[in-house]
Amino acid sequence: MIGRLNHVALVVPDLARAAARYRDALGAEVGPPVELPEHGVRVVFVTLPNTKVELLEPLGEGSPVAGFLEKNPSGGMHHVCYEVEDLGAARDRLVAAGARVLGSGEPRIGAHGKPVLFLHPKDFDGTLVELEQV
Amino acid sequence: MIGRLNHVALVVPDLARAAARYRDALGAEVGPPVELPEHGVRVVFVTLPNTKVELLEPLGEGSPVAGFLEKNPSGGMHHVCYEVEDLGAARDRLVAAGARVLGSGEPRIGAHGKPVLFLHPKDFDGTLVELEQV
Repeated sequence: MIGRLNHVALVVPDLARAAARYRDALGAEVGPPVELPEHGVRVVFVTLPNTKVELLEPLGEGSPVAGFLEKNPSGGMHHVCYEVEDLGAARDRLVAAGARVLGSGEPRIGAHGKPVLFLHPKDFDGTLVELEQV
Repeated sequence: MIGRLNHVALVVPDLARAAARYRDALGAEVGPPVELPEHGVRVVFVTLPNTKVELLEPLGEGSPVAGFLEKNPSGGMHHVCYEVEDLGAARDRLVAAGARVLGSGEPRIGAHGKPVLFLHPKDFDGTLVELEQV
């Protein structure tokens, strides 16, 4: 069911500094910061040959990553995103297997303009899993 | 400098259960458990079309992931591994940029039989970064 790893998301306390490290120290292809106020994050996309790393910092009030940064002031690994062809079918299969979908349980439009769902980290051994329909 | 994302590593408290979830609930291609006593882990490789997810549990005394599991009993995201062509050159560039290499600072042979280094998570915003020469 799951396809490609769309991205790994890392929450960082200082996006400009993290982006500079990926560009200068790791020599990666690093895009400009992009504000996604509807998602409460500012993001820098690091483009690797086979996938993306997303560096995230909180943006505005009630950012979904603010709490993570409070618990992990140095930052850390936040979630993985797997691609699926049919998000509704994926959800039904996961719910039947006992996994919990976060929020309303209905897909919403994610940071890439495509439908996404998040699965409860307790059902995946402490890892927050995003599914994105591609 | 960095190339492909070779893998994302997730530490789990129960490898068989985690592997079953990836196979049955997420419908991924999941390999058999492999014991790597020289690395202190038992690992299941999840093969995605563009990269791998490695599910890890501690194996034997002094496992490098045992402490992580003590701090995170439910498991969690452990590290990312980026590929590089020349690990010595990568190390020199990173050290010049102020990043710290864990251990002796010299490459050792990793779980895939190739030279690897780990970078200090404090220098990468709380994310443990492995570099593997391919």
